[in-house]
Parts: sequence; C-alpha cells; structure tokens
Amino acid sequence: MTPSVTWAPVSGGITAPTGFKAAGLSAGLKPSRKADLSLLLAPEAAVCAGTFTTSVVRAACVDLCADRLQVTSGRVRAVVTNSGQANACTGDRGLADSLRITQAVADRLGVSHDQVLICSTGVIGVPIAMEPLLAAVDPLVDALAPDGGGAAAQAILTTDLVEKEVALEAVLGGRRVRIGGMAKGSGMIHPNMATMLGYLSCDVAVPCDLWQDMVRRAVNRSFNSITVDGDTSTNDTFLAFAAGEPLPEDQLEALEEGLTLVAQHLARSIARDGEGATCLMEVQVEGTDLETEARQIARTICGSSLVKTAVHGRDPNWGRIVAAAGRAGVAFSADAVALWIGPHQLMSGGQPLPFDRAAASAYLSERACGGYLVDDTVQIRLSLGDGTGQGIAWGCDLSDQYVRINADYTT
Amino acid sequence: MTPSVTWAPVSGGITAPTGFKAAGLSAGLKPSRKADLSLLLAPEAAVCAGTFTTSVVRAACVDLCADRLQVTSGRVRAVVTNSGQANACTGDRGLADSLRITQAVADRLGVSHDQVLICSTGVIGVPIAMEPLLAAVDPLVDALAPDGGGAAAQAILTTDLVEKEVALEAVLGGRRVRIGGMAKGSGMIHPNMATMLGYLSCDVAVPCDLWQDMVRRAVNRSFNSITVDGDTSTNDTFLAFAAGEPLPEDQLEALEEGLTLVAQHLARSIARDGEGATCLMEVQVEGTDLETEARQIARTICGSSLVKTAVHGRDPNWGRIVAAAGRAGVAFSADAVALWIGPHQLMSGGQPLPFDRAAASAYLSERACGGYLVDDTVQIRLSLGDGTGQGIAWGCDLSDQYVRINADYTT
Repeated sequence: MTPSVTWAPVSGGITAPTGFKAAGLSAGLKPSRKADLSLLLAPEAAVCAGTFTTSVVRAACVDLCADRLQVTSGRVRAVVTNSGQANACTGDRGLADSLRITQAVADRLGVSHDQVLICSTGVIGVPIAMEPLLAAVDPLVDALAPDGGGAAAQAILTTDLVEKEVALEAVLGGRRVRIGGMAKGSGMIHPNMATMLGYLSCDVAVPCDLWQDMVRRAVNRSFNSITVDGDTSTNDTFLAFAAGEPLPEDQLEALEEGLTLVAQHLARSIARDGEGATCLMEVQVEGTDLETEARQIARTICGSSLVKTAVHGRDPNWGRIVAAAGRAGVAFSADAVALWIGPHQLMSGGQPLPFDRAAASAYLSERACGGYLVDDTVQIRLSLGDGTGQGIAWGCDLSDQYVRINADYTT
Repeated sequence: MTPSVTWAPVSGGITAPTGFKAAGLSAGLKPSRKADLSLLLAPEAAVCAGTFTTSVVRAACVDLCADRLQVTSGRVRAVVTNSGQANACTGDRGLADSLRITQAVADRLGVSHDQVLICSTGVIGVPIAMEPLLAAVDPLVDALAPDGGGAAAQAILTTDLVEKEVALEAVLGGRRVRIGGMAKGSGMIHPNMATMLGYLSCDVAVPCDLWQDMVRRAVNRSFNSITVDGDTSTNDTFLAFAAGEPLPEDQLEALEEGLTLVAQHLARSIARDGEGATCLMEVQVEGTDLETEARQIARTICGSSLVKTAVHGRDPNWGRIVAAAGRAGVAFSADAVALWIGPHQLMSGGQPLPFDRAAASAYLSERACGGYLVDDTVQIRLSLGDGTGQGIAWGCDLSDQYVRINADYTT
C-alpha cells in the first residue's frame, strides 16, 4: 500500500489527537510497584471499534468490552486498563470485579457504566487486587490530561521492556488530522485478535460501521500479522476511538492508510520487544493467488521455532525457511520458489544457489535491537510464483533468554 | 484402548520378527564418523504401507517412496536410509541421487529397483555425498543379519541422543507373533505424516489395503500425536512391513493393538528425546464430542511454547494450559473445564481451585529424563465436558538447550 498522502510522526501518542485525555499511575497491583493502572477518555460523541481474541477461553473483561460495544453501538467514552493480573480463568469473580471497576470509573467520570470498558493483562488465573485498585480510581481520574499519553502507555506494560506509542499527522481535505496509538505485548503473542492490548485514537468522526470495517482491515495487516511465540492470549484486545468532525468521503482511503500505518508501527514494536528478542524479523511473501495465503505463509515462517533459533544464531539456514513454508497449509509449486535473506539470494526456480555464507551470516549479525546506529530488521523474502497475492508478517528470534523469562514467570 | 491380549517386550528391535534382516555402518557421510547408513530387508512376499509428510516441500526420496509403493501395490523388499544429509531442496539432483542409490542396492540384492525405497535425514539443502555412499553398498549388504536391528537403529540417528527401538510378542490364534520397530527424530518434530523416520516389521501376512488402514490408524494415535517444536519436516516417513503366514480374521484387532503399542512406544521415545528435553509431557484430553477434537487440543497444549517453558521451569502455571486449549480451534464451554497436573486438581467447573503450589512444583521437579529410578513423564489431564471423545498427545519441555542446539546447527 503506497500512502497517497504524507503521514508525519508527531509526539503525544494516544493523546496526540484533539480532545483525548489519558492518565497512568501505580495503584500497587504489581509487586514491582511500577505503574499499573491507566485510563483513556475519548471526547463526547466518540465511536469505538474493537477486535478481540478468538480464543474459546477469554477473560471476563473481553466479554464485557464486546458486549458493551454492541449495546451502545460503539458509543463508549473510556477504557480503564490494569496490568499485573489478567483476570482470566478467575471464575464468576472475574466478571463481578470487572463490573465493579467500570462502575466506579463511570461514577467518577459522570458517564453511564456501559460507556466504560476494561482491559486486564498479566498472570492468568489471578484475580485483581480490588482494594488498591478502587482506592486509585479518584487519583486516576484527577490525573487525566491532554498530554497523558506517555503515562498511560507506561502503565499498561507487563514483561515489555519499552513503551509502544506513536502518533501520525496528515492534512486531509484541507484540515489537520491526527491518529495516535499505544500498545503492550511481549509474550503470549500470536494475536488472532493475545496478551496484546492496543489502543488507537483519531480526531475524525467516522460512522461506526465504516470505522469497524476500516479497523478490522488495519488489524489484519498489522496485529494479526505478528507472532512472538504462537500462543494466542485469553485477553487480546484492540480498541480504536474516532471522534471529531467528519471528513469528505474521498479522504477516507487516506485515513485508512494512516490507521494501518499506526497499527503496523505498534505491531512491529511488539514483535521487536518480543520476550528475549535480539532482532526483528520481517518476512515478505509474494506470488500466491490470495493476500491471505501470502500472509499465512509469512506468519508460519515467522512462527517457526527452527527459523527463529537459526536467526538467533545468525545462521543462514535457509532450508528451515522453505520447510516452514511447506507446512503452512497453502498449496504451491516447490519448483517456483525463490528466496532472499536481505540482499543475498539463496534459491531460484526451486533450486539452491551458491551463495557467500560468510556474507549472509554477516548480514544477520549486523541486525540487532537496541542500538540506534544499527538496523534491527532481518528481511526474508520468498517468491512462490506468478500470483498477485503478497503479504508481510513480523516476528522475532527465539533466544535462551525467552526460555528463562518464561520458565521463571510465576514462581 | 485396553489390549485384549498381552503383548510382552522382547529384544531384537526391527529384526525381532521372523525373516527380517538389517545392517548399519559408517559410510563417512557424517563429519562425526558415526554410523550413517542402514538397510532393512523384508522377506519375499512382504507388503509395505507408508505414511509421509504432508508438507508441500518434500524431499525427492519421499516422492520416490510414495511412487514405488503405488506402482508395486506395496510389494517392496528393502529400504536404505542415509543420515547426515536430508537431500531435500537439492533440486533435480535430489531425485537423480535417490534413483542411483536404490538402483545400486537393488542390483546387489538381486531384486527389482522399484522394490527398494530410500529415506534421508539431516541438513536440508545439502546433497548426499555419493561417492562414499556408493562405495559402502557392498559392505552394507554383506552385513545384513537377522540380529542387525540394533546396528540399523543406530545408523538412522542425527541429533538424537539415544536409539529408539522396540519389539513386542504375543500369541494370536495359537501362534507366536512379533512386531518390531525403530525410529529417529529429535528436532523438526511435528509429524503430519518430520524429521521423523519410523520403521515397523511384523511377521504376519496382511492384505495390503487392510494393512494400510491399520497402519494409518496406528500412526494417528502415535506419531501424529507428538510434537517437539511444531515444525513438520520435509522428510517425515513411516514404513511398515508385514510378511509371514496370515492370521485368522478374528485376531486382526489384537494385531492392530500391538501395532499401535509399538508405534506409540517409538513416538514417545522421540518426544522424550526431543532436542534439549528434560522430561516427557503426556497430555490427556477428555469430554469432547470427537476423538480428533480431543487430540487436536492435546497436541496444541503439548506444542505451546509457554506451557513447555513453564514445565521446564517446573512451574504449575496452569493458566497457560487453559489458554492453549482455548486457541486449539475446537469449541468448548469454559464453564466445564477441569484440570489436573499429576495428582493435583487445579480447576473444576471452570473455576480455579486452591491447591498446594509447593506440592505441585515438587511433582513436576520429580519428573526428569535420564534416570532409571525416576518417572520422566509429566501428566496433564484436561476434562472439557460430557462428550465421549478422548485423546492423548506427547511432547517435551522447551529448554535453553533447545535454543543452543538449533542456533548452532549448520554453522
């Protein structure tokens, strides 16, 4: 998708668009005493579209969000997020606690209870510490501010190492439009709409049905195209608010491009911050019949433990890439396969090519997260034929550190 | 499945059944100089059933096996196996090399070339070292012996730490029947009929179509129920030979039980020897409508990186088990979920139960591979309702060692 307008980055994150306020603070829900409670408040007349985990086992807060978006036809105003406890698999108590929290926030904001949503992230099976949370509702609402995006983006994190926020600005139909976003997620990431939470704000009014369609397409091209460990979470939620003046209809495509760019930036940030990751993997697949097929193959490669460990070892073990493509559930002719790792072509017409292994290893070794002077993205490109389908997926390498983080998480 | 006869273990592996001969030696295909070439010879009039990888990208040797089984209606006599090079993604050369090797073996055995199959395992994209292999055909055929099962079982290994062989004996219809088996596999294991090779021998004559059906069912309940890393290989092959006198029809069910027991023993051996594994995981799921649904959920749990790392950390992080079940693609009611880790029940009626975390951790810590005095199997049982469907899957924990093995494999 080539942008038809220029979307320029601006500061402010989720509160960059006009009219949005946010806050984040420590309510004492996490043993670490890091920030763990956030609130996002959208302007009156906002519409909200949501996409949620496809897991059969989903947290009570996810059910609550989906129900309220339906009951209110997307007319919700606020979302409160606690990190530390996922409030999933907590039985009847899970829903009761979610209802009490949203009621308390609604009362303090002076809005109807069904205009407040709740997202929870953290350990599964552990209920929320209600007393400290409820005691923090007053200071949380008091802290709401038009420049509160950064504080909110911090308070939604769990095992994440960095905040994930972005805001873009463009001129559409003669006026300034801004889209802001924030997200969290580092493990249990294989969104089908995981423990991934994403939030987006936009200072344009869009009719609810249309907004829902735009958001669904943007999510498929972003969050639903990343994987850290193949584990779809019980709590995955993406909520997108739109509020402001409407745009001329001929500007909506450009708006959707902006929406997709913000969602892709946040999705890549999650993959780059994958637990134990030392680099970002970007897999481009082209030449299938359908876009969905290309994306399915790209995501299977990104999710392969053997590809991920090879990239971690900075080893151009290309056979594993082709093997992963072969089991993706999409038919293709092995005779037409061409493969590149960065600038190095390793296969053509289904046959292996002689290549400079030392140079390909060096390409991989030069890609590493964390530095500002280095490129952190390993590019893998696979061409499968003459079809017009193309798709991209993002993931990260699999390191010893991933195992340590997850072998030691609750005990 | 409760066995209706007693199948007792006997020595001899793949050559325990009457009339089968095998051999294994080092042809110099592996840099380590370990044994790397094996041959199995079945009696005249043997029938052979095969199941193969479902990957779109499969090695030339897999195509050759499938084609020859069809052309000969299963009337093949021998299978030669080289370890060290998978001969997958090697272009046109892959098939030409497979043809030359089987021709050389057939000539030396005095059988038709299409009665000889070939399996290859090792690094993808690397052709077989033909000169040393062809030079080893004569000594390989000379070494064929009725007690050659152990040598053959060694020569098919790659990253495996131990040989995988078994033989069982029972009295069916008044006569002694033996079933033998050998297998290899440690990484790239998520057979959908990987780099998994399995071989079975049986000294009973069974009509080819019937044998193929029996073998397919046994493979679904064994090799297709294990996962090490979710990566289906380009070379997965299971070949089962039957040769001898026929059995009365009323004994065939008992024979299939023996077949399934041998296949399950070999499959569990592969999961237990999973790269970097420190324990075997056995996941039992019950209460679904269909057996296939129960197996699908069991395998998804066994394949979850988060469940596998929790088990590695000996951490009863049960939320990850339920989360994995939720994304398996099978509908169930979260309200009916009951869960046990070993003797410890952690959930009932969809609600978490208080449990002794220290005791559950101790249960996990006491399970470890490698000792003869300890039980190496972590038992996880999940009940999802009133349905009669039940299924089992086997896997292993995910360790730092898995990452090291696979980050460093080709370079």
